[in-house]
Amino acid sequence: MPAWESYLADHDEELIGALFDFLRIPSISALPEHAGDLERAAAWTADRLRHIGVPEVELLPTARHPVIVGRWHVSDDKPTAMIYGHYDVQPADPFELWETPPFEPTVRDGRIYARGATDDKGNIFAPLAAVEALVRTAGAPPINLIFFIEGEEEIGSPSLPDFVRRERARLACDFVIGADTSMFGFDQPSLILSSKGLAACQIDLRTGRSDLHSGLYGGAAPNAVQALVQLAATLHADGRVAVEGFFDGVRELDAAERAEIAAIPFDEEAFRKSLDAPRLWGEPGYSALERRWIRPTVELSGIWGGFQGEGVKTVTPSTAHLKLTIRLVADQDPETVLDRIERHVRHHTPPHAEVTFTRFPGAARPFAIDRHHPALKPAGEALQALYGRAPLMIRMGGTLPVAAIFKSELAVDTVFLGWGMPGNQIHAPNEWMRLIDLRRAMRGFCLYLLALGA
Amino acid sequence: MPAWESYLADHDEELIGALFDFLRIPSISALPEHAGDLERAAAWTADRLRHIGVPEVELLPTARHPVIVGRWHVSDDKPTAMIYGHYDVQPADPFELWETPPFEPTVRDGRIYARGATDDKGNIFAPLAAVEALVRTAGAPPINLIFFIEGEEEIGSPSLPDFVRRERARLACDFVIGADTSMFGFDQPSLILSSKGLAACQIDLRTGRSDLHSGLYGGAAPNAVQALVQLAATLHADGRVAVEGFFDGVRELDAAERAEIAAIPFDEEAFRKSLDAPRLWGEPGYSALERRWIRPTVELSGIWGGFQGEGVKTVTPSTAHLKLTIRLVADQDPETVLDRIERHVRHHTPPHAEVTFTRFPGAARPFAIDRHHPALKPAGEALQALYGRAPLMIRMGGTLPVAAIFKSELAVDTVFLGWGMPGNQIHAPNEWMRLIDLRRAMRGFCLYLLALGA
Repeated sequence: MPAWESYLADHDEELIGALFDFLRIPSISALPEHAGDLERAAAWTADRLRHIGVPEVELLPTARHPVIVGRWHVSDDKPTAMIYGHYDVQPADPFELWETPPFEPTVRDGRIYARGATDDKGNIFAPLAAVEALVRTAGAPPINLIFFIEGEEEIGSPSLPDFVRRERARLACDFVIGADTSMFGFDQPSLILSSKGLAACQIDLRTGRSDLHSGLYGGAAPNAVQALVQLAATLHADGRVAVEGFFDGVRELDAAERAEIAAIPFDEEAFRKSLDAPRLWGEPGYSALERRWIRPTVELSGIWGGFQGEGVKTVTPSTAHLKLTIRLVADQDPETVLDRIERHVRHHTPPHAEVTFTRFPGAARPFAIDRHHPALKPAGEALQALYGRAPLMIRMGGTLPVAAIFKSELAVDTVFLGWGMPGNQIHAPNEWMRLIDLRRAMRGFCLYLLALGA
Repeated sequence: MPAWESYLADHDEELIGALFDFLRIPSISALPEHAGDLERAAAWTADRLRHIGVPEVELLPTARHPVIVGRWHVSDDKPTAMIYGHYDVQPADPFELWETPPFEPTVRDGRIYARGATDDKGNIFAPLAAVEALVRTAGAPPINLIFFIEGEEEIGSPSLPDFVRRERARLACDFVIGADTSMFGFDQPSLILSSKGLAACQIDLRTGRSDLHSGLYGGAAPNAVQALVQLAATLHADGRVAVEGFFDGVRELDAAERAEIAAIPFDEEAFRKSLDAPRLWGEPGYSALERRWIRPTVELSGIWGGFQGEGVKTVTPSTAHLKLTIRLVADQDPETVLDRIERHVRHHTPPHAEVTFTRFPGAARPFAIDRHHPALKPAGEALQALYGRAPLMIRMGGTLPVAAIFKSELAVDTVFLGWGMPGNQIHAPNEWMRLIDLRRAMRGFCLYLLALGA
């Protein structure tokens, strides 16, 4: 057994105790009354880096919650990795659904139950423990490290782009290790090749001054809900987005990449049943997994107009509203796609309606890492060594905005390595992390850092 | 000047005083706390009939508020008209918008301001005053009369169908005079040839167990809002209802009838501007007035699904809802039309959604009176004599449910004769009736009853 592994085994109780201290701080970034807890969690994180022996630890202010940056330069001949995570957590309500209190970490059936157990305190604690084990047993980490631990991830990292741009020099690195994701399955490690970008907009139609009596005006006055469904129905044709130019820039996967996705164990019928959906739906010519992972989508995420109460109101509505969520894949540009959608909407708005098109802030670019990126192969080797099986190369339909920010501001890619598991209730009551996964994560980070330094 | 006209002139102050007493009773049928006021208004109405000299006056109970039935049989050789109206009124809130209190009738600028001034206390008081004048000056009314004055009109006359069916024998008549409508213009009398029926339904789509994360599931999971707009957009094609069989039974108007409508003074552009609508909309091949009056419509009266708050929620909705209001013309049958719409909805619901189709109670049949009906010509003569010009023969997009009830239960038609005026704020604050119209109404009913008796 290597020395670092013995260290982890010998200090298991102490390390888990430290994580529990971290978990006890209700650092809920969405709730202003927890501002003091954010400060405590930031201070705890900085202290932990100092405890490991990180020589430069700074607690850098942002408009809201500080970023902890730690730097440990060991050699100009070694690569520099920036380890990313966050010390803030989601709100814990509804509290009555928690079996044990969210900020009193409790072990049951081999799982730590607590808000943040996985997202992200457990996931970011693992590389800290790994570095500690390597440092205590070898004197220094095997590569140059920057720690970047923020406190605004659960509110959309509003300060991050400006902060990273401003601190560009201090954050210069070769790649990022994002410790904030999940594995494909309990015994199936995985690495993420891409995630989707995000854009969102609202369409407001107006057909007149006020809602009208459907008997007195119906048949002659335009109806905003009718105009909206007529418009909205043009967004898709047979399951495919029907907006001209929408697919421009989409990197089509090659046969090998599609074969790789086809080899992922994914049962469409079981998936359909899990949703209790009459039928799956989407772009023809692609599997459900491809549609979720590598095809851009336009989702009608909300619609409203006219009377929505019980029973009947004989009204001809004069306004109607639609929200769209657009998921993008490399190399679509959010603003260009919104341009195309706006053009489509203006072109297809019936002449009896006036349209207002609003773009929401917070668009995120899609993320993709080259499968031959030099930091990816060592991650695969570490997971192979840890699990005795090769990781699946997977993709995400969700958005990993930090990867896009680090890419655009620092020109570096991100290797995501996190030990979330299917069903572990992040953002929900009774969030958990298995002890076995926490220990795997610590060992996995040791193996990965050593492989990077080799 | 005929004697009845002198009587009306001589008793003008006394008659208006009596109407004011009626208007002071806040007989709001929608508000349970006014139950005592409904009783007072019913008693006032019965007393008024006795004051006129109606020999049989009964206050007949229903599940809620009584119907006052008065009967005056003068001769087997004369026709029997049933005069319909209601003693209940709409709620008066918001009170702060009334210039003078709603139940303290006040004359300003030649108008009586009060809740019920037109709808329907003013309108039903006019024939009572007319009968009084005829009776005081000739000893008896010129034809057989039944008075039918209900107290539930403003809550949709829930007791009426059962009541009329039960009292069929007592209510046997040749036709009904409905004293509860409006004239086309201030100096333009009119008679109503038809009004639309009403049916309403709700369409609920479901595509899965719960709303989903649009990034993790979008592209594969079905979206209920998308399915709904796809379905709803099939209800119309180029402004025309596209439901198979929807127009079955519609009586097409002949050239003379269309010419009559075309001759109605109606400025489409002024109408459009009054709505502040970008463009009018509806069935091609018909004028806006034809579409409002004589063409059936399907209105999308409400829609909702997914996220409707501020900003962005990245959700794939699993339910979505649509309400339809259907306006019918003679001789469409509400249930048959709902059958056709349900068949269309089931046929056009995409396979990735499940549909629930709900019919709302309270469907109303369309109403139409034959232009050669023997009770209609004398009404036209009376209006011609009163105004010095022929009435316009108009139609209504709204619903007159009582006419359909009397037609189906008593097999009689209804001649509507009411002196509502454009803009007189029925169902709104500061309801008014002009004194000139009240006096015209009293004289108009005298002329009409005399013409019917001639």
